[in-house]
Amino acid sequence: MHAIGIDIGGTKIAGALVSESGEILREARIPTPAGDPAAIVDAVVAMITSLSAGEQVVAAGVAAAGFIDADQSIVYYAPNISWRMEPFQERLASRLHLPVTIDNDANAAGWAEFRYGSGRLVTDMTMLTIGTGVGGAIVTGNQLFRGGFGAGGEVGHLRVVPDGLPCGCGARGCIEQYGSGRALLRMANDIANVGGIGLALAEARAEAGALTGEIVGELIATGDPGAVHALRELGSWLGQACASLAAVLDPQLFVFGGGVAVAGDLLLDPVRESFQAHLPARGYHPEPEFVIAELINNAGVVGAADLARIRAASR
Amino acid sequence: MHAIGIDIGGTKIAGALVSESGEILREARIPTPAGDPAAIVDAVVAMITSLSAGEQVVAAGVAAAGFIDADQSIVYYAPNISWRMEPFQERLASRLHLPVTIDNDANAAGWAEFRYGSGRLVTDMTMLTIGTGVGGAIVTGNQLFRGGFGAGGEVGHLRVVPDGLPCGCGARGCIEQYGSGRALLRMANDIANVGGIGLALAEARAEAGALTGEIVGELIATGDPGAVHALRELGSWLGQACASLAAVLDPQLFVFGGGVAVAGDLLLDPVRESFQAHLPARGYHPEPEFVIAELINNAGVVGAADLARIRAASR
Repeated sequence: MHAIGIDIGGTKIAGALVSESGEILREARIPTPAGDPAAIVDAVVAMITSLSAGEQVVAAGVAAAGFIDADQSIVYYAPNISWRMEPFQERLASRLHLPVTIDNDANAAGWAEFRYGSGRLVTDMTMLTIGTGVGGAIVTGNQLFRGGFGAGGEVGHLRVVPDGLPCGCGARGCIEQYGSGRALLRMANDIANVGGIGLALAEARAEAGALTGEIVGELIATGDPGAVHALRELGSWLGQACASLAAVLDPQLFVFGGGVAVAGDLLLDPVRESFQAHLPARGYHPEPEFVIAELINNAGVVGAADLARIRAASR
Repeated sequence: MHAIGIDIGGTKIAGALVSESGEILREARIPTPAGDPAAIVDAVVAMITSLSAGEQVVAAGVAAAGFIDADQSIVYYAPNISWRMEPFQERLASRLHLPVTIDNDANAAGWAEFRYGSGRLVTDMTMLTIGTGVGGAIVTGNQLFRGGFGAGGEVGHLRVVPDGLPCGCGARGCIEQYGSGRALLRMANDIANVGGIGLALAEARAEAGALTGEIVGELIATGDPGAVHALRELGSWLGQACASLAAVLDPQLFVFGGGVAVAGDLLLDPVRESFQAHLPARGYHPEPEFVIAELINNAGVVGAADLARIRAASR
């Protein structure tokens, strides 16, 4: 049976009617009324209502950045909605004739990748989404790993450097500060500052006023040594984080998604090398593979819809 | 129905007939015929046979240090049995009239703690066993976390220091080198070397020839400032590791077991302080509690028996 998936982002709310095979049958998209929580509830209710009109729909799943409780009903904290301890599920369910669940957006996207993307042939995978930050999702034994309070899978806040760079989470040294798109820009700027292999980066920066992800990505694609060096440094940190994650989580597969992952093997090769160099007990147990995510767009809505469908079926 | 649990340690093989409520009804214990794999199989078969004589027994579970595959049948590597890629389950099952499963010993002990000890009221817990090394076990959603290849839960090999102290696993900077009983001895020796608060440690060392866990434990119990300082340093490292583990695993409970955990709150207080100081997104989601394990002896055999019983029931 079809389900609805909604993904509340910082700038837009995306929604879709999704089939059991993960196919998007209908789509909707509106700007996020950021800072107006009541308007967000109204918009989500209207979107679910219009997407399900005239269809047999079994459930609706809503994904948002932030911490959702283990029962998938209360938002502990959601930066895009400026809510704390908000009974979001109840606010939606009271106005809809459908079972509604809420989920963390990275978990929803990771779940879609597990069900319909590169993770569909394994039972255990760990996804790292390398965008502005480092998001994550863990699947184990064919189930989404949520943790005891619903806040599990925040792999971006694994610490890789004691007393390292300050992180937006309030801690220091998180892999998010060494393995994210923002970290790549910092590394590219550092290289641009020192000449040598940084010459092209420095020229591009002077021309554009500032380096952006697009500029660095284009230089990586042309094989510019400075930009590739920055990406290799990023990949080395991510490989070190994966070595620790493998000791704890032992996935069959690490999946890399997000904007930086379009670099493909230019990212994964240094990740693999660094992983091999840092893996505990290497050679004494099987090792995971490293792949790029297959679902680029809509993973959040597809995953949210599927998680809601599964939850409705289990009741 | 009763089940048999066996725990193959480096020096002894312990076994028990265990009731569904975790009660030990019969016990056996023999020295491990280390270095003689065939003799170990013989001994385990004989122990299971004698423990189950005249009883209704549903299954037998055998725990050993090392990496066991996800199907709980092949030993990738077991230091105490000097086996690699050995079909241990088949060797046992072919000589027994019982379903047999094998499990990692730390996982078995953690599972016992979850079922019958301090974890019995939660759904998600992470256990750290602070003995000579740092062992671990993860329970999530009331299930033992095994990982994709069966090697998950090795929390002792989470890296806490880049290019840190070399670890027996071949990597560097693992928490095992900063949070284990062996690390505590190193820290105590360092303090003994510098005088001041290390005076009592230095005297005890001179008298005994070398510091041992017992000596340091006794000094901790008397409140000796040098020994307590070493324990606080150990606890600080463990709290840092728990902060990373909480971001990834989000347990409701961290349970500390093993010989060093007899220090109780003298260990847990610095762990809690350090955890608070390093927890990502502190204040934005619920936090775990820290407790000492309740099952000191026999956790391995009790957990192995229960895991075998659960597996037999699911067939």
